[in-house]
Amino acid sequence: MSTNPADPAQILFAATEARWNTYETPLRDAFDEIDLSYRLATELPPDQVDFIIYAPNGPVQDFAPFTRLRAVLNLWAGVENVAGNDTLTAPLARMVDPSLTQGMVEWVLGHTLRHHLGMDAHIVNPGNDWTPAAPPLAEDKRVTILGLGELGLACAEALHRVGFQVAGWSRSRKEAPGIICLHGQDGLVDALRRADILVLLLPLTSQTENLLNADRLAQLPSGSVILNPGRGALIDDDALLEALKRNVAHATLDVFRTEPLPQDHPFWHHPQVTVTPHIASETRPRSAARVIAENVRRGIAGEPLLHLVDRTAGY
Amino acid sequence: MSTNPADPAQILFAATEARWNTYETPLRDAFDEIDLSYRLATELPPDQVDFIIYAPNGPVQDFAPFTRLRAVLNLWAGVENVAGNDTLTAPLARMVDPSLTQGMVEWVLGHTLRHHLGMDAHIVNPGNDWTPAAPPLAEDKRVTILGLGELGLACAEALHRVGFQVAGWSRSRKEAPGIICLHGQDGLVDALRRADILVLLLPLTSQTENLLNADRLAQLPSGSVILNPGRGALIDDDALLEALKRNVAHATLDVFRTEPLPQDHPFWHHPQVTVTPHIASETRPRSAARVIAENVRRGIAGEPLLHLVDRTAGY
Repeated sequence: MSTNPADPAQILFAATEARWNTYETPLRDAFDEIDLSYRLATELPPDQVDFIIYAPNGPVQDFAPFTRLRAVLNLWAGVENVAGNDTLTAPLARMVDPSLTQGMVEWVLGHTLRHHLGMDAHIVNPGNDWTPAAPPLAEDKRVTILGLGELGLACAEALHRVGFQVAGWSRSRKEAPGIICLHGQDGLVDALRRADILVLLLPLTSQTENLLNADRLAQLPSGSVILNPGRGALIDDDALLEALKRNVAHATLDVFRTEPLPQDHPFWHHPQVTVTPHIASETRPRSAARVIAENVRRGIAGEPLLHLVDRTAGY
Repeated sequence: MSTNPADPAQILFAATEARWNTYETPLRDAFDEIDLSYRLATELPPDQVDFIIYAPNGPVQDFAPFTRLRAVLNLWAGVENVAGNDTLTAPLARMVDPSLTQGMVEWVLGHTLRHHLGMDAHIVNPGNDWTPAAPPLAEDKRVTILGLGELGLACAEALHRVGFQVAGWSRSRKEAPGIICLHGQDGLVDALRRADILVLLLPLTSQTENLLNADRLAQLPSGSVILNPGRGALIDDDALLEALKRNVAHATLDVFRTEPLPQDHPFWHHPQVTVTPHIASETRPRSAARVIAENVRRGIAGEPLLHLVDRTAGY
């Protein structure tokens, strides 16, 4: 399995053509920055490929022909459409792009403040209503983040810095300064009950699909707001539509089971739902290419890869 | 002029009856916390009054009868309706309420992120438009704050922490880590030319009234956004309406020359203007009462008052 360091690394780009047009130059720049000897192409003989830069909607679904594969480097943060692929035996790395994290923080902070300040009533105010009631301060508002991975933790910290009371929930116990950290099934009930604003940043796994079902939605306090920039299937859509008639005041959703959100979906014209078109976080080619180059370097040097996926846990 | 410390301080509350109902208990609590011997009332013989807790829309306009007045403690941050009162010879203190500053930071940060993320197009989207173009990052957006007093500086620092490129402009030279500090007339041109988002947090004085006139509005870059949580008269309203046809994309205004904003004002139904009803910052009675109690204590002890107004500068 060893490779002569003088041999160029064979790197297959297996994503859509649009991605190739966006990524080719940043990738070549990033590989040049680390003085890598490489061959990068969208077609290569499978038995010669060392690394695959991957998106699950690209041309590769069967990894069996890639007999000397060292690693699959996912272009996306979510890996639910590749983690369960039984033909993949090589290590799989998620994308953790600092720009993606920053974009997510900006979306979550912005929409949290939007709901906290009650902006919508001013943005759309056909009756010229002038009610000078100052909103509460952030210190009086409780935000819960479900998921304390890279993205959830970064959002929790940013919300805490602005002054919100922030709780975070994760499967296993975590700690973060200034954040109330809850975990496990008991912790989930507490996390939901205190959520004036609930932010979903969990990975999508068999454990988290439909996590927000009717029972759990009913735990949220009256007038609560849901922000979902995570994965569409974390929420049972029908249960959410019912909860919007009761305790949930608004849902701002960036991700959906089917994207683009179908034109006949009831979320589109629901007065208590805001649809954003999967913009909360996007991998930026320049910073993402640097992360991929670093992982190629590590793979060749025999160092542990960054952001390895635990295939058993599914993220 | 000396007073026996055993004599209770005579404190006149001279604001509206609604304010008295809100403030009486917090003030008594705050005075008790510092063990003050005092008499607090809405009517007292003028020649016995030591301190006036003041709002310019209250019953006192002529300070001449208050012959032993030690200080006027304004309930509001803005002093333009009292600083020029020639009958006032005692020291005048502005309100600097930490809750007021925090509320302002939340409003400015929230509306900056709203415009930065292009939220309005998602909040009101009758055509179900799905265009998944991720917004730029905060590091690519330049925000200018006019005014680097308590409020302006706090907002500049909060925006900088989120990642925006922040410049601040003030009359005299200031310095703040991470903030591009500009000053004077030349600095104002630079401050306007770089403002993707412009935030007005200047005091209202004869120098700043109509600061944003047609000439200065024309310096703003194409597509710029104005946030005014400062004072309504900082902007020439007619010039703003003209600029909205050219280089200014949107104005979100919290303050107006006449409040409530008259029902026939063109701002109400203008598609590029958002009106918020003077809610960006409000003095919170509990924290404000503590600031007043501290200044009464200082006044009695002969210590310098907090937040003294420079009557020549007008703020």
